[in-house]
Amino acid sequence: MAAYVVGHKNPDTDTIVSAIAIADLWSKRGIEASPIAQGPVNPETKFVLGKFGGTAPEVQTDATDKQIILVDHSDLAQSLDNLDKGEVVAVVDHHKLGDVTTSNPLEMWVWPVGCSCTVIKAMYDFYNVEIPANIAGMLMCAILSDTVMFKSPTCTPQDKEAVETLAKIAGVSEYMDLGVEMFKVKSAVDGTPAAELLMRDYKDFDMSGKKVGIGQLEVVDLSILEPYKEALYAEMEKLKSEGGHHSIFLLLTDIMKEGSDMLVLSDDPAVVEKAFGKGVDGKSVWLDGVLSRKKQVVPPFEKAFA
Amino acid sequence: MAAYVVGHKNPDTDTIVSAIAIADLWSKRGIEASPIAQGPVNPETKFVLGKFGGTAPEVQTDATDKQIILVDHSDLAQSLDNLDKGEVVAVVDHHKLGDVTTSNPLEMWVWPVGCSCTVIKAMYDFYNVEIPANIAGMLMCAILSDTVMFKSPTCTPQDKEAVETLAKIAGVSEYMDLGVEMFKVKSAVDGTPAAELLMRDYKDFDMSGKKVGIGQLEVVDLSILEPYKEALYAEMEKLKSEGGHHSIFLLLTDIMKEGSDMLVLSDDPAVVEKAFGKGVDGKSVWLDGVLSRKKQVVPPFEKAFA
Repeated sequence: MAAYVVGHKNPDTDTIVSAIAIADLWSKRGIEASPIAQGPVNPETKFVLGKFGGTAPEVQTDATDKQIILVDHSDLAQSLDNLDKGEVVAVVDHHKLGDVTTSNPLEMWVWPVGCSCTVIKAMYDFYNVEIPANIAGMLMCAILSDTVMFKSPTCTPQDKEAVETLAKIAGVSEYMDLGVEMFKVKSAVDGTPAAELLMRDYKDFDMSGKKVGIGQLEVVDLSILEPYKEALYAEMEKLKSEGGHHSIFLLLTDIMKEGSDMLVLSDDPAVVEKAFGKGVDGKSVWLDGVLSRKKQVVPPFEKAFA
Repeated sequence: MAAYVVGHKNPDTDTIVSAIAIADLWSKRGIEASPIAQGPVNPETKFVLGKFGGTAPEVQTDATDKQIILVDHSDLAQSLDNLDKGEVVAVVDHHKLGDVTTSNPLEMWVWPVGCSCTVIKAMYDFYNVEIPANIAGMLMCAILSDTVMFKSPTCTPQDKEAVETLAKIAGVSEYMDLGVEMFKVKSAVDGTPAAELLMRDYKDFDMSGKKVGIGQLEVVDLSILEPYKEALYAEMEKLKSEGGHHSIFLLLTDIMKEGSDMLVLSDDPAVVEKAFGKGVDGKSVWLDGVLSRKKQVVPPFEKAFA
């Protein structure tokens, strides 16, 4: 039975490239595997795939009767529908350990590094499989994206080393220039409806029984998003009333200033003060130095909600 | 903060040796770590530690305010008390993925192989750390034990390769002879109270909300256990009434005949027929070819209880 490799909902570049690379690595280990995605790719990922001749994976959302390899997540809320009706045979990730469980022994590679693709680079080496140049280029871009070009506190020496090696394999001499070009594509919001912007990099979490949504938009200059703030807040209100959330937070991250303006919509806004020691000013709060949802936002909120 | 490395309740040789080896590997990676155990070591493990100059880890059962590395399990029911009041920073395992979750990114090495120590052998290689001869000997014995000297269906080519290499490092030329000696120690039951025998290799599972206990005794000849069957069954009844279990199963495994006589005590004995296509004959059922609780007993029961 062929396995399907899938990342989280609202796929980002790490999730898509991880699915493509793991399917390649598994196939070369002699196990048939195809990448799938839970939704269409975002503009940044489209740029990366275009640059290195990759193809967006087919969209599929149901795990029933499938063998599944999870990449870049291990939370049920972020995974395929009916995951319990399929079989998870492997997990490759760089997040906290979520609530996915299995009935059979499986293969897991999870490291506390900046990007799943950094783990995958090491897996190619471990299994003695040569990384194709185009996949090396995509892996490199995913790491630059997830680590905000090494600025994120999630970035580790392994991430930097992986980018150095992957750039050589891909034949890219000035990878930081390519990173800036990629972040400019990511920052482009012109003409994009606010609903789509909100969902571009959005995840639901179960925090002590409460449904909490956290989105993030990374831009090279926060002023780009200024005209969209009201419309984004209105979309958060809509999503909250339809989804039955306790809270929805949206991080507007300025990767140059290295901080985030967080829009707050919550049944109990005091959780923000509890989590960050700083109260909400109107509808938002400036969090200096906060670039990483995973490392700087999810853990303090999980504690505040506990 | 130093980390504590701990295996599952009712520790077996894999759990104890994994804790000792991972503490060694972590220390050599520059991270302070000490092995602990959730209970005293069994006779087989005592034999292995004695053979290679190892020390039984200190018994500790509470995770509060500790950094924890889990080995050989990822189920809350098999782990330390108050695991949510400590922080799980790493998991090394070879079982199905259990219900442990974390708030922060962590390091996980989980492979579908016969023994956690096979994963650990590969981790030493990955981190370029030399395996000390005495630890190599213990790792080798743990793999021979968990794979029933390569007879278990859980055994993989990686397990065999690891034993070959570890035997050389440990300076053991006839490792199969050592394996037989070890299993004879494991088979010795003379004078051991039935209550202690039942708990020697016993695990509780949560199967679709029902508490299910599964124990296993591996012997070189089933006739060794014949005089103990009634007393073991009486201990199962006592444990069930005290523990509020739905079912307790005890596998009496004959590693030479390669099968298990399973003692059955259940609120619904029909689950056995559902799981194995074979009904209970009196108080037990012979399961031909069944050597592995993990691969041949837990998965069919999980399906039958679902």
